[in-house]
Amino acid sequence: MPPAPKRKFRIAVLVSGRGSNLQAIHRAIQKKLFDGEIVLVVCDRPDAGALEFCRKNRIPAKYIAPGEFKTKLEGPAEETYIAELRAVRPDLIVLAGFMRVVKPLFIRAFENRIINIHPSLLPKYPGLHTHARAIEAGDKETGCTVHFVNEVIDGGKRIMQARVPISPGDTEDALSARVLKEEHQVLPSVIKMFAEGKIDYANWPNEPVVWSGATHRT
Amino acid sequence: MPPAPKRKFRIAVLVSGRGSNLQAIHRAIQKKLFDGEIVLVVCDRPDAGALEFCRKNRIPAKYIAPGEFKTKLEGPAEETYIAELRAVRPDLIVLAGFMRVVKPLFIRAFENRIINIHPSLLPKYPGLHTHARAIEAGDKETGCTVHFVNEVIDGGKRIMQARVPISPGDTEDALSARVLKEEHQVLPSVIKMFAEGKIDYANWPNEPVVWSGATHRT
Repeated sequence: MPPAPKRKFRIAVLVSGRGSNLQAIHRAIQKKLFDGEIVLVVCDRPDAGALEFCRKNRIPAKYIAPGEFKTKLEGPAEETYIAELRAVRPDLIVLAGFMRVVKPLFIRAFENRIINIHPSLLPKYPGLHTHARAIEAGDKETGCTVHFVNEVIDGGKRIMQARVPISPGDTEDALSARVLKEEHQVLPSVIKMFAEGKIDYANWPNEPVVWSGATHRT
Repeated sequence: MPPAPKRKFRIAVLVSGRGSNLQAIHRAIQKKLFDGEIVLVVCDRPDAGALEFCRKNRIPAKYIAPGEFKTKLEGPAEETYIAELRAVRPDLIVLAGFMRVVKPLFIRAFENRIINIHPSLLPKYPGLHTHARAIEAGDKETGCTVHFVNEVIDGGKRIMQARVPISPGDTEDALSARVLKEEHQVLPSVIKMFAEGKIDYANWPNEPVVWSGATHRT
């Protein structure tokens, strides 16, 4: 018998917007950075650009109505999200610009297999509008962090960070664009490490790896 | 000649969700709490419950695509919002659960005529997830605040607040429901004061009025 084909690493992605980090993951897979596939994209906004990107690139994607809450996923909608995601048996769930807080039911359903990318050097600036806050505070640098998701907003174990200097006179938009470029490198790098079995929650240290650009450039 | 009919106070409302505060404003007008009309509701989510409420109640409403950003209104979409709102000549713009930060262009277009309702006793807990934060902090009370909108998130001059005690063992949902009930009283009360010419930005004190329930119950 020929050897069984090696199973691809199964990634589910949750998005709310145009999905530029989703696009970076897709690009990394196309370039064979790791042996994975995006098995489902779930989006909480029917008009999000990410859905259009998925249609064009034949990535399985669906809009699932997020229910009555504006900033969290809870209640019947949460259960639907869990069921739809369970059905595709993901190895990893990536929150890539998903603008809702996931709650304990969801977190326990995929325990230690949910990661998020956040545009700050956590623990600095959890929550929104991180770039404006970093500029207002006069910080000299900011960046992005990929971390495990737990019940504290942007508070789970950090996996990898990239640092980005802030220049005098930097605007929120300019800084945001520069950090986003790094996000597009760091997130696929982290997923690659998951796909290669190099990361698991229990054995991961409390300090994040600082991304050096050594692994790849997509 | 008969006297010219008195002009109704023109209210525009921006929403993102089911619009329970919008419904409270509508109810107050129906009950003739003040002589006003909702001249336009603008919503940044095509599937929001608020749009359905407006259809059923013949309130002029439109979904306007919010553009590429997830948490702010900026760029071409911001200009569309401004143009659509200017076209209906609002006396007051009410952010009633509109889940985006409005930026200087928008704020200057309607200077000192934009108010927001926020579910905390500002200056405590600007931003999101206020009830969870108040419970975590062990606070004995929370509430809601109606305030003028300026360029600091939830930071403009406060107009009116209602206080709500936090009970031991309170959950986020239970507390949220109790505060929401107060929001539905405070927001129409503030709009009534605007409609009667009792509030203008320049003469308003730096301390908010504490809502006593004296003005009305809708």
